[in-house]
Amino acid sequence: MPLRFTAPPRIDDRLVERSFTLDGIDGILWTPESIPEPAPLILLGHPGGLAPMHPRLAARARSAAAMGFAAAALELPGAGGRTPLPDADLARAELRQAIMSGGRPTDETVDRLVLPLVEQAVPEWQAAIDALLDLPEIGGPVGVSGGVISIGVRLAAVEPRVVAAGLFAGSWIPRATLDEARRVTIPVHVLLQWDDEGNDRQQALDLFDAFGSAEKTLNANLGGHTGVPAWAADDAGRFFTRHLTRSHPRG
Amino acid sequence: MPLRFTAPPRIDDRLVERSFTLDGIDGILWTPESIPEPAPLILLGHPGGLAPMHPRLAARARSAAAMGFAAAALELPGAGGRTPLPDADLARAELRQAIMSGGRPTDETVDRLVLPLVEQAVPEWQAAIDALLDLPEIGGPVGVSGGVISIGVRLAAVEPRVVAAGLFAGSWIPRATLDEARRVTIPVHVLLQWDDEGNDRQQALDLFDAFGSAEKTLNANLGGHTGVPAWAADDAGRFFTRHLTRSHPRG
Repeated sequence: MPLRFTAPPRIDDRLVERSFTLDGIDGILWTPESIPEPAPLILLGHPGGLAPMHPRLAARARSAAAMGFAAAALELPGAGGRTPLPDADLARAELRQAIMSGGRPTDETVDRLVLPLVEQAVPEWQAAIDALLDLPEIGGPVGVSGGVISIGVRLAAVEPRVVAAGLFAGSWIPRATLDEARRVTIPVHVLLQWDDEGNDRQQALDLFDAFGSAEKTLNANLGGHTGVPAWAADDAGRFFTRHLTRSHPRG
Repeated sequence: MPLRFTAPPRIDDRLVERSFTLDGIDGILWTPESIPEPAPLILLGHPGGLAPMHPRLAARARSAAAMGFAAAALELPGAGGRTPLPDADLARAELRQAIMSGGRPTDETVDRLVLPLVEQAVPEWQAAIDALLDLPEIGGPVGVSGGVISIGVRLAAVEPRVVAAGLFAGSWIPRATLDEARRVTIPVHVLLQWDDEGNDRQQALDLFDAFGSAEKTLNANLGGHTGVPAWAADDAGRFFTRHLTRSHPRG
């Protein structure tokens, strides 16, 4: 199914932003204003809610454009104007309650929050890859960057057009995601905030250990969930340049 | 005590290498052939044995010079032509035997190997900083890079002229080093090889956790002791550029 642009392009300092809809799901595509040849694509993950996330997504898209890449984001199931997911909302409330009372969520709560999201979101992202790669200005390969880490891991494991995964260990991780990580063989770059209040450090280390990739980097920095330092974001950018730029020597 | 150059400078592709002796201890100083102003200094750590380590040290010095930095290495106590340390040699043999038989060395063995080395080497490195900063071509500030991690941690904790520490978690760590790490407040960049046969991963993570620094980065990569990927070395180089280059904006 082709995507349909829903508004005129907005151009801000050489970054072109276009809202689209694909099978009823909202998305945003960013491209550099000047593209000498069809560009690689980075899928920008996020926690859901394209509208409130817009400033941060646009900033990440601008960084991607500076490297010559297109970037796209798709609304998550249950978020923005999409049909609510009451079971996930309940699980999210339980998770927050457990953390606020100084404990940790049960595995069962994490599973109920994350696994249905992965099941629904991954085919949607794959359909978006189909539609985006059909655009003349986008040529692949495709990278995934950030967002709900279990979605990134699943895409890295199952989608052959995704050749590099930059993951943010900033969400709780179902055991099933650790099992899937063993099947991931593409290069992986994992950002971990050492004192992130929204994840479990040992889980993140176990996940990094589990990846089957011949190239994997863990980049951990002091600070909380939103405190990723600028140089760590730059390092992640260089990871994508190494793996998405066809002419760039690997390694 | 001033250092004394023991041979004519050797110049190889714009890198000047000079052997020196300081209070009977051999050392090597590398400087860029052209230095517009007194250069910052990086102390290159190593496992001991300047002669066999020379190719790798010279390569690291060349990277430092490309960033405008001088680099220096000092022979370790007990290594090269220096007076042997029989107790440390015995502890090293015990450590290797424990690892080769599939076990791990006792804390007591690690202490006997590492702690006397730290006690003896750190004042020697401090004397070398004194002498090197007296040279007109070297102006500081000073960074430490790699080598026996407990020596780097002690220097980072006690030597105010050392403003940034790039550490390699590739050696066994006495408990005393973890306690010292809590006193370190300068920026720290820790390289960890995830499958290093010469260290203990959990110890390395505990050490990273212990640093009292407001800025600390753990950069972990797949592979064994000698497999640090080129891009990880580049990231460490950018860490020094951020913290040793006076004109460079921090952060």
